[in-house]
Amino acid sequence: MKIAVLGGDGFCGWPTALHLSNAGHEIHILDNLSRRWIDTELGVQSLTPMDSIQERCRIWKEVTGETLHFHLLDIAKDYQRLRQWLDTERPDAIIHFAEQRAAPYSMKSDIHKTYTVNNNVGATHNLLTAMVETGIDAHLVHLGTMGVYGYSTVGAAIPEGYLDVEVEKIDGGKAELEILYPTRPGSVYHMTKSLDQILFQFYAQNDGLRITDLHQGIVWGTHTDQTRRHEQLINRFDYDGDYGTVLNRFLIQAAIDYPLTVHGTGGQTRAFIHIQDTVRCIELALQDAPKAGERVKIFNQMTETHRVRDLAELVAGLTGAKVAYLPNPRKEAAENDLIVKNDGFLALGLKPTTLADGLLTEVVEVAKKYAHRIDRKRVPAVSAWTKDIAKRVETDPEGKRLRSVS
Amino acid sequence: MKIAVLGGDGFCGWPTALHLSNAGHEIHILDNLSRRWIDTELGVQSLTPMDSIQERCRIWKEVTGETLHFHLLDIAKDYQRLRQWLDTERPDAIIHFAEQRAAPYSMKSDIHKTYTVNNNVGATHNLLTAMVETGIDAHLVHLGTMGVYGYSTVGAAIPEGYLDVEVEKIDGGKAELEILYPTRPGSVYHMTKSLDQILFQFYAQNDGLRITDLHQGIVWGTHTDQTRRHEQLINRFDYDGDYGTVLNRFLIQAAIDYPLTVHGTGGQTRAFIHIQDTVRCIELALQDAPKAGERVKIFNQMTETHRVRDLAELVAGLTGAKVAYLPNPRKEAAENDLIVKNDGFLALGLKPTTLADGLLTEVVEVAKKYAHRIDRKRVPAVSAWTKDIAKRVETDPEGKRLRSVS
Repeated sequence: MKIAVLGGDGFCGWPTALHLSNAGHEIHILDNLSRRWIDTELGVQSLTPMDSIQERCRIWKEVTGETLHFHLLDIAKDYQRLRQWLDTERPDAIIHFAEQRAAPYSMKSDIHKTYTVNNNVGATHNLLTAMVETGIDAHLVHLGTMGVYGYSTVGAAIPEGYLDVEVEKIDGGKAELEILYPTRPGSVYHMTKSLDQILFQFYAQNDGLRITDLHQGIVWGTHTDQTRRHEQLINRFDYDGDYGTVLNRFLIQAAIDYPLTVHGTGGQTRAFIHIQDTVRCIELALQDAPKAGERVKIFNQMTETHRVRDLAELVAGLTGAKVAYLPNPRKEAAENDLIVKNDGFLALGLKPTTLADGLLTEVVEVAKKYAHRIDRKRVPAVSAWTKDIAKRVETDPEGKRLRSVS
Repeated sequence: MKIAVLGGDGFCGWPTALHLSNAGHEIHILDNLSRRWIDTELGVQSLTPMDSIQERCRIWKEVTGETLHFHLLDIAKDYQRLRQWLDTERPDAIIHFAEQRAAPYSMKSDIHKTYTVNNNVGATHNLLTAMVETGIDAHLVHLGTMGVYGYSTVGAAIPEGYLDVEVEKIDGGKAELEILYPTRPGSVYHMTKSLDQILFQFYAQNDGLRITDLHQGIVWGTHTDQTRRHEQLINRFDYDGDYGTVLNRFLIQAAIDYPLTVHGTGGQTRAFIHIQDTVRCIELALQDAPKAGERVKIFNQMTETHRVRDLAELVAGLTGAKVAYLPNPRKEAAENDLIVKNDGFLALGLKPTTLADGLLTEVVEVAKKYAHRIDRKRVPAVSAWTKDIAKRVETDPEGKRLRSVS
């Protein structure tokens, strides 16, 4: 297949591009390289030394003989070039990672909020419109997030996308309605993925676009079978308070003798998936495209759930690190349950890589190897959900102490 | 109160500004005048001769002694000026009409689709972000649409915004979840109003913004008590295939001996409201603001429902016009029921103006008075929802005949 990977230079996009190239597909990476610009803006960098996308593509060619085609293109801002590209290349599948993907970054300031909304909604809608306009018959696979559901605490298992609800009819009877499982996003970033769902529903219904939406959990790990093949193919690894994800951050903190920073009670339950399973899930989703006229196919792309404080204790036990409890910069419930159905990918043959598989040690090794590249000042999570919360976070004595020693 | 009317130069915005000025409020109209530009783009104009916004404001001052402050500002494109304006003026209430509001226009082409999404989502989100950033405590009243529900045919009455659903808990019990009544928008325009709902829910929850969302039916009529006070205060009246709304279009067609154009079977049921009730509802909504931390208050802003073909027969009976059945340019169910609850505004004291009140004759008089200004070529509705439908519409013999005689 000819596959366009939008956002193919990012943390999930890059290993996906390699995985699918390795599986024999013709890969075109479209990326505006905004994630590299945001590193520059924030003054942080990937823990792992990351080469330019052009250099990475050159190495892949050297190692495997396969070409990765790279196209510098901003799909949110340059609708016309996107449409022309699709019209000319007519890919069989499009994998859409091209969105700003950090909740804390999306909440940093008004400018970050408007950027995230305009970029993410613009990118997704431009893509859908261009697909209709060019009349290409590509399967669109989009990376969404479990976070759209806002980690509901009602004790029900979150199904794969849809819910049957009963409504009372005027004539006294009952009618069943199939609806998108109700979302309740907790950040501007998560909100954009909730908006995406509505866009997908409309374009599947009106234009018969074939769309799969993957509601992903928090990704951990760094290597896949392909990124391991050459040092310069290594995946990016974010450890800072905005882009670093919770489990990877604990492992980094442990590697540099920094306390594991748990926010609030750590009672938040989250869904997780290893990066190797991410790329495998995307391959599986590609093989199971919906037909034109069918509803959007939705998978929960996660393999296990854990409470944040349990993860901290696990990593502390593994590494001897201490745990520090800090005020929560997010506005969210202190404690929540989370039960998630992931029957879809299990039925397609996914064999989950779980925390129990010992890959935690692998991440600790990556963290130790590159520990000299860590700026300890960038470890704390400081982006607060509201101005009141920002004050509480700033004035917390334990947080102050940590920031002064780091 | 000091009230900002965003989009205060439009069909609903202008009479609202006058109504609230007349009620003693200090009115600031913020508008980018895009609706006037779209007239220019489409080569159409309001049936009623419409002066510049500055001239209209001058006349209002002359007639009533009251000042309408006008500010030329694009809230979707110029976030910084919007924020500064709110920071300086700190209005008590903001009424948000500043969105592209025609479904057919939103479906004309890829450019119209992306414009509608970027403009409407950008405007609403910029406004919400700026309200948070400036810390103003204004009540936001937004004009939404009944159309977000896609005219569901399950035979249930559409409640005012929310639905209680039951979900099965893991422990075998049941839990109740209050959700936004599920939307199923049928055009890009309606989709943007569905996106707005998610934005409102998030900002009410995260930042305690006080928001009222009005799900309005199709507006008919042209005059309000205030627009009648001087010929130059007259409201705009759209009759073209993109911006003209169904009942007003029938009345225009009748006035110029053009067949009443019913699309499909005319079996679509729609909700309606007279423009005089629109402005009254907005005044009522302003008096009933939610408190900070409360959920978004949602009203169904409509007073009656009718099947399109019944309306055509009613107007035909009143005027002697003929009815022409044409292929439907929209992708929608041929027939649907629509039952809508509007208890909220009735409880607040709304006395509905219904079709039975004889105001249809008033619109016919407006139509006849200005019939010489009608370009008959602009009467047909030609924007099609898909390219396949466009072909069907273009090649229909009755449509061809109508277009050739007009």
